[in-house]
Amino acid sequence: MGEQEREQEHREQAVTDAVVASFARDDRQGVVLRSLVRHLHAFARDVRLTDREWEQAIGFLTRVGHITDDRRQEFILLSDVLGLSMLTVGINAPASAGATESTVFGPFFVDGAPEVQLGGDVAFGAKGTPCWVSGTVRSLDGTPVAGARVDVWEADEDGLYDVQYEGGDTAGRGWLSSGPEGEYRFWCVRPAPYPIPADGPVGELLEAAGRGPMRPAHVHLMVAAPGHRTVITHVFAAGDPYLGSDVVFGVKDSLVAEFVEHPPGRAPDGRELDTSWTSVEFDVVLAPDSA
Amino acid sequence: MGEQEREQEHREQAVTDAVVASFARDDRQGVVLRSLVRHLHAFARDVRLTDREWEQAIGFLTRVGHITDDRRQEFILLSDVLGLSMLTVGINAPASAGATESTVFGPFFVDGAPEVQLGGDVAFGAKGTPCWVSGTVRSLDGTPVAGARVDVWEADEDGLYDVQYEGGDTAGRGWLSSGPEGEYRFWCVRPAPYPIPADGPVGELLEAAGRGPMRPAHVHLMVAAPGHRTVITHVFAAGDPYLGSDVVFGVKDSLVAEFVEHPPGRAPDGRELDTSWTSVEFDVVLAPDSA
Repeated sequence: MGEQEREQEHREQAVTDAVVASFARDDRQGVVLRSLVRHLHAFARDVRLTDREWEQAIGFLTRVGHITDDRRQEFILLSDVLGLSMLTVGINAPASAGATESTVFGPFFVDGAPEVQLGGDVAFGAKGTPCWVSGTVRSLDGTPVAGARVDVWEADEDGLYDVQYEGGDTAGRGWLSSGPEGEYRFWCVRPAPYPIPADGPVGELLEAAGRGPMRPAHVHLMVAAPGHRTVITHVFAAGDPYLGSDVVFGVKDSLVAEFVEHPPGRAPDGRELDTSWTSVEFDVVLAPDSA
Repeated sequence: MGEQEREQEHREQAVTDAVVASFARDDRQGVVLRSLVRHLHAFARDVRLTDREWEQAIGFLTRVGHITDDRRQEFILLSDVLGLSMLTVGINAPASAGATESTVFGPFFVDGAPEVQLGGDVAFGAKGTPCWVSGTVRSLDGTPVAGARVDVWEADEDGLYDVQYEGGDTAGRGWLSSGPEGEYRFWCVRPAPYPIPADGPVGELLEAAGRGPMRPAHVHLMVAAPGHRTVITHVFAAGDPYLGSDVVFGVKDSLVAEFVEHPPGRAPDGRELDTSWTSVEFDVVLAPDSA
């Protein structure tokens, strides 16, 4: 490194040092902001960020801000496609050997979804092939967890959640309690892969990067029980063409299960179906509450 | 490091690796995005970013986006107070030994400002003590640069730029050409320190961090001449109480000059003043155009 390069490096470091020093507070916020400044500056220095790129970044963030409203959160979408959401999930819900792994929460959960009985139907008219989901909720030591709350939400066969339909009614969502042996089971519809909203700046970013907007088919589950850590997860459909390229990086091998196709006929709950249907088994293992 | 920590680290690194791999394009954009992902993820992992902090960050950026409009650019303000703007200036306008140093451009430059003659007045009615600015524009080798374009803009004695007044006329801005010996001189008003707009999310961030919103008094200069690299800089007033805490980190020692106070009387250009006035000398040295 020549004299001039050393001098330049010194000048750049001096800017970073001054900013870090300005966030001197000895509290959590200070720790977070100092680290943010260090990493943000290291990024700009590593890539030798040009004035034009800085302007493009300001313009991009401005467009992300302006498309965001009560119904669309483009900043979350941005965090998702940069893998920051999934990383944050991993940091805050560290895997316990043997416990069901967590994945992204996503923007489609809705409070106040209807309760159904064990074996009930959460489709509520959602379009698609009937799908029977069953499994057992257990503790890490194998003990069945009775009365666990199992929240379910999913997209229909067109890859759309109920809230994505103009004025749509609740569909493809609900909750139930596990039975005395920790067993849970319900009807829903077979989920379909779907694109995240790609008509905004995040879509442009994906397009420019040559990345697709698709998520592989999945059913969302959130399982909670006293004394246990709540798990927020998905059940992904084995064989889905997008398992290897989930745009939000949510797939984990342990969350992929076989959705088995069945001809019309009698279902496990005795119901007679005149259409083909699907079933999937997925057991949930809850880690103890660390509180 | 125990087995569990190693496993956790491995899982987190796997998320980062997957996202980096998704931006695989062998072009400049790929380089920038891969570096951004690496540094953003390193930040989240270093501070062990909590779900709540992630939510707060999404909410903060959303508010920054919503307050930004044609007249206010809160993302630039955010970049400024995080020192990213000043760092980008330093990366793109590397100091040449002996050449005038650059600093932030800021949001207050306006295209199409009026031309004045050598020795003319760019105040155009801006409120404040008359201020005589003079100096010479030279090349690195000492040769005077005749006909350099010197753009000037500044806040008035209330710390406000003309564009910050509702329906205000052009004031405190203009441009002139240097004379045959590289000399330049003009009247303006003595600038005052001022706060950046602090009534939005960036102001809240500063408040929470215990940082003030002030910039020390300065006159903006942009000097351009054929064969030379354009310099965008400020002349700061020596003794200003905010020189050590410029909220946008724009101060460099070489840009601080003495604003000398004078009693009413005859000015250097022969003008008789019945009020006190100020003068400052500031020479500009232009690096050669590297193109």
